[in-house]
Amino acid sequence: MTESQNKDDLAYARSKVSFDIKDMTNYLHGGEGNVEQRRYIIDLIAKEPIFQKDDWGWLNHTDAVKRGIAMSTRLAEIKMEHELNDLDLSTMMEAIDDPLPIVLHNGAFIPVINSQGTDEQIEKWIPPAEKFQILGCYAQTELGHGSNLSKLETTATFIKETDEWEINSTTFTASKWWIGGLGALSTHAVVQARLFIDGKDYGAHVFVIPLRSLDDHKTFPGVEIGDIGPKAYNGFNKMDNGFARFNKYRIPRENMLMRFSKVSREGVYTNPPHAKLSYGSMVLLRSVLIKQMALYLSRATTIATRYLTVRRQFNNPTSRNDADVNPGLETQVINYPMVQNRLFPMIAQSYALFAAGSCMMEMYLGLMAGLSSGNIDALAEVHAMSSALKSYCTTIGAAGTEECRKLMGGHGFSYFTGLAHLFAAIVPSNTYEGDNYVLTQQMARYLLKEIKTARTTPEKVTPFSKYLLLGLDQTAFSRTTCAVALPQDWLKPEIQLSAFEHRCARLAFELSDAVDQGGYDQANPKTWSDHNIECYRISHAHAQYVLVLWFIQSVRDAQDPDSERPAQPASINVLERLSHLHALHTIQTNLADFVEDGYFSPAQCQSLRAQVKSLVASLADEAVGLVDAFDHPDFLLNSALGATDGDAYKRLWDKAQSEPLNRREVCDGYEEYIRPLLKRHGDFKL
Amino acid sequence: MTESQNKDDLAYARSKVSFDIKDMTNYLHGGEGNVEQRRYIIDLIAKEPIFQKDDWGWLNHTDAVKRGIAMSTRLAEIKMEHELNDLDLSTMMEAIDDPLPIVLHNGAFIPVINSQGTDEQIEKWIPPAEKFQILGCYAQTELGHGSNLSKLETTATFIKETDEWEINSTTFTASKWWIGGLGALSTHAVVQARLFIDGKDYGAHVFVIPLRSLDDHKTFPGVEIGDIGPKAYNGFNKMDNGFARFNKYRIPRENMLMRFSKVSREGVYTNPPHAKLSYGSMVLLRSVLIKQMALYLSRATTIATRYLTVRRQFNNPTSRNDADVNPGLETQVINYPMVQNRLFPMIAQSYALFAAGSCMMEMYLGLMAGLSSGNIDALAEVHAMSSALKSYCTTIGAAGTEECRKLMGGHGFSYFTGLAHLFAAIVPSNTYEGDNYVLTQQMARYLLKEIKTARTTPEKVTPFSKYLLLGLDQTAFSRTTCAVALPQDWLKPEIQLSAFEHRCARLAFELSDAVDQGGYDQANPKTWSDHNIECYRISHAHAQYVLVLWFIQSVRDAQDPDSERPAQPASINVLERLSHLHALHTIQTNLADFVEDGYFSPAQCQSLRAQVKSLVASLADEAVGLVDAFDHPDFLLNSALGATDGDAYKRLWDKAQSEPLNRREVCDGYEEYIRPLLKRHGDFKL
Repeated sequence: MTESQNKDDLAYARSKVSFDIKDMTNYLHGGEGNVEQRRYIIDLIAKEPIFQKDDWGWLNHTDAVKRGIAMSTRLAEIKMEHELNDLDLSTMMEAIDDPLPIVLHNGAFIPVINSQGTDEQIEKWIPPAEKFQILGCYAQTELGHGSNLSKLETTATFIKETDEWEINSTTFTASKWWIGGLGALSTHAVVQARLFIDGKDYGAHVFVIPLRSLDDHKTFPGVEIGDIGPKAYNGFNKMDNGFARFNKYRIPRENMLMRFSKVSREGVYTNPPHAKLSYGSMVLLRSVLIKQMALYLSRATTIATRYLTVRRQFNNPTSRNDADVNPGLETQVINYPMVQNRLFPMIAQSYALFAAGSCMMEMYLGLMAGLSSGNIDALAEVHAMSSALKSYCTTIGAAGTEECRKLMGGHGFSYFTGLAHLFAAIVPSNTYEGDNYVLTQQMARYLLKEIKTARTTPEKVTPFSKYLLLGLDQTAFSRTTCAVALPQDWLKPEIQLSAFEHRCARLAFELSDAVDQGGYDQANPKTWSDHNIECYRISHAHAQYVLVLWFIQSVRDAQDPDSERPAQPASINVLERLSHLHALHTIQTNLADFVEDGYFSPAQCQSLRAQVKSLVASLADEAVGLVDAFDHPDFLLNSALGATDGDAYKRLWDKAQSEPLNRREVCDGYEEYIRPLLKRHGDFKL
Repeated sequence: MTESQNKDDLAYARSKVSFDIKDMTNYLHGGEGNVEQRRYIIDLIAKEPIFQKDDWGWLNHTDAVKRGIAMSTRLAEIKMEHELNDLDLSTMMEAIDDPLPIVLHNGAFIPVINSQGTDEQIEKWIPPAEKFQILGCYAQTELGHGSNLSKLETTATFIKETDEWEINSTTFTASKWWIGGLGALSTHAVVQARLFIDGKDYGAHVFVIPLRSLDDHKTFPGVEIGDIGPKAYNGFNKMDNGFARFNKYRIPRENMLMRFSKVSREGVYTNPPHAKLSYGSMVLLRSVLIKQMALYLSRATTIATRYLTVRRQFNNPTSRNDADVNPGLETQVINYPMVQNRLFPMIAQSYALFAAGSCMMEMYLGLMAGLSSGNIDALAEVHAMSSALKSYCTTIGAAGTEECRKLMGGHGFSYFTGLAHLFAAIVPSNTYEGDNYVLTQQMARYLLKEIKTARTTPEKVTPFSKYLLLGLDQTAFSRTTCAVALPQDWLKPEIQLSAFEHRCARLAFELSDAVDQGGYDQANPKTWSDHNIECYRISHAHAQYVLVLWFIQSVRDAQDPDSERPAQPASINVLERLSHLHALHTIQTNLADFVEDGYFSPAQCQSLRAQVKSLVASLADEAVGLVDAFDHPDFLLNSALGATDGDAYKRLWDKAQSEPLNRREVCDGYEEYIRPLLKRHGDFKL
């Protein structure tokens, strides 16, 4: 193969793209201004020596944390030097591409004090925190306990004599654990501990606890801190996830954050009623994750698409793209229908996730605007929605990244694909901010309430649950079938949405019926947890419905030149195909749900599969353009096989040369191990 | 939580198990003798200092290869000292638990010479190889090429003048790549290269090529060797996967392995016809992988089951196992139905894989016995079967391991679960020995031939394809429906098998029809690769059918006290439930395939789901016993959270203390990075 073949293949593929890539990029990122600002921030990071990624593949956790510390402090400096806002900061973290110890300072320590501290406490702690004169983290999880605040074992006992709290890790399992920023960096923590006064347990409250001296960073007596060690897949390896045990450790009474609950000098506890304001920050964290999944899965598909365009293997006599120009070579792997049918739906998912990221963030901002004027009407729906979408989107984000890696065959198992690092960064999101299975109970509970509303005051059902009205007349509902008659009917958005609505309504009512009937069987009473499998099913079904709906709406909006994200007709043409593929492939992947009650006929199942294949084939000439449009620069991709120029083999070769083993002609261990083995039975001469 | 709670929970769970664990272990491993020998070999490794795993979480690839060299030479010594056979050697590798550079010496270098060398060549190379006086590897894959031998770019050109071959990496992409054992250890390689005589290309042939001097391990002039660097997820990190380029490198003519093709002194090439004997070794490698998946997935479920038994989170008022004895504590996570419904089917899969591993190996041995007496009748079926099962079993093995890790929640992301290492060891099996997608074409091709046989000489259809006879009368077939009327009908093995047979027959005939019709559309002619999605579907469907069948047969056989693997009635009782769960859960996971042609009715779908839940619930008291029966000692599991005693939190704590960062009270980087940041705006005093 000639040295330019890789690059030629990618260039040739680009020449076939039917739409303007810049136009598509602007659609995805919400306009040219955003695109330029994102590029500017990424370049800012890309030129800093401390943020280079060349040796990441060799850093063990111990060395990586040292790097993470250095990167953290430089990040803090840049933030101050450039006075970056939150959006820029998140782009900076995207470019840095590994969670750093300092992330919890800005992302948790400061927000918790701001939301739970009194005005005086905010005035005391926030200015030094903003200037990084103190560095903080957030300590909730314990060795034996996670999300269930009421069972935390760390205690804060009021000592009236000295007006102090005594913090204790009463048992071994009370040790704070997994706390990012704690193991090495932080001087302070906001700590969840159960509050005791005169032997009475008032439940979990938040305390600001100094950990390390501002003079020499040594831990204070009564505090034992350490790092919890390496993590799965080398993920989060620059993060100093730590543990902490407290032994009769005293802090002033004022270090309890008292915006809501208060304890007076006399030890009197007061707890004014207040709305579930902390839901807002949970919604934000989950909404941000959805946008992150768009950025992550699109990176994975970018790498896979480019590499599979230059990789050639075996011969496919009628391969569509290159047999004409390169008759002597093997077939480009991306030309195999099996590969296209695995890869292109993930490109479509990435586009759907971009749309969902924007819509979910708008929904969050709407909620916050409402809350600030005392309106909590939207809280339940937005919270349920962010939970359902977080669960579904992070699931497909992690699974899709690993699927992209597998698509890349043998070379896909090299560290230098960039995908293993990406997977390790994504996959814990399936667990944190609410385990993806447990979390689905939120949407299920919400829909059960909505069913009650539908039965009593149907006009009050919220827009995204309107499909529940379909299920009120069960006889009519059970007779409903899909309207597809001709293959092209599958391309009608209304027909796609009807299918998702029907499925959601059926699953929601089945769950509702099961819950209602649960108590009747006295011998085997059912509890909520007996229905959790069904909660998972309806929650993911709802999330898929919303993703399909938002993508359809986004493409419709883009046809209006005055909209926020307009796109040219050539782009719209491809976006429509992507939207169809996303909807129909999602149906195909969950086909049983659409057919087991007779909604789809056998013939419709067959024609659906054919339509998916046809849509996939229609995107063969667009794939490289579609991933170029994500606009991920090479610094961000950090992939030998997925770089913009397509020069995959050359870059893989160069990366291999950087393996330290290759500095020596004879490997370490030869004299000690290999030579004695070879000579054990005497010299062998050929 | 008290310090003994973890251990108490696991002990209490063990006390509820209904069967004798040793009896079950004997069933799984094929008798007490095998169980003892496996334990003996694992202990042999466990007591060797070089095989300890304590620091594995911190080894980067560079350090890991040095360790791999030391482990390799010790392995060679033990093999010689104890005169181990192949089975013991594979148990040794199971215990060592990481692929080592020397594995290719015994697993590829020696077998290739034995199968492709002449008697003289075997006599020359094998004795020194057996004594480790030379160390070898197998070099096929290149930077730009994989399985397609005819397109390899490495060339071996006959030089008549000197009676030599000149080996050349003619292009950059001809570099041998990914070759295990090459980067650091090997002195020799068997190399696939395209043979040229007088400018004529005779295709790929195998050559024994000396790489490094037996005196000082330096590479010979004309050979450039290196290590290709770290791999995804730190997998295979002790393996010295290497690259090699040859530049006018000369070797004697006799170094071509000439059992079949020969080249004479005069440069005359002869190639006597011979059967596809190399299929035998592919079948063996794939059969071994199926057994490995049983060992791997059972390890993952062991770790998850034990940890989830001691892990407690939230409250489930009617949790079944522990509310009676521990009313004040949170619920054991394993008592949540959602968790059971994710975990227990994987325990059932592990048992199915044990049965399949034995059956496939028997099938292989039967094939080899036949081949040695010149009978190649079984070759096509066994090859197709091993391909289909390899694809399916390694897919569920890798996916299941990661699912077990996720089941373990937050702590599941710690390196110390042992599951991340396991996943990284398993997941490349989805790609090597035949990519799991590409490989499914083998079974599809085989079934298409069997359909032709069924139509002409139905009595000649092989046993595992007998279901194809169902599809011969298409009218009758399309009217067939599932016979389940009552819930307990699902527990009839014949009904389960009928469902799988119906599905396989339908998918096979649909593929056959599509292939037959493919040529008719002149505007859009179809090629084989256009059908590869359907190949994947039918191949996995067939593999699932065989797994279900073999598990059912294995449990039936176990009821005969004179069988090879007898089991007591109490064990049989649980095995039957596992077999039902495995069959019905596999159906549920692929439900669309059973319902989209009307074979299942809507009511049957509902009752199937209920039956799966009921079977899962029936195993709640057995789970810990079922994983204990796999008999994986703690050394093998290498898991803080899955050890036999259940002391998860204590072990996790101890492991964390071994993090090198914890040796210093103040972290590296404080003076250089943290202090300047904290002091940038002057001292802050609280």
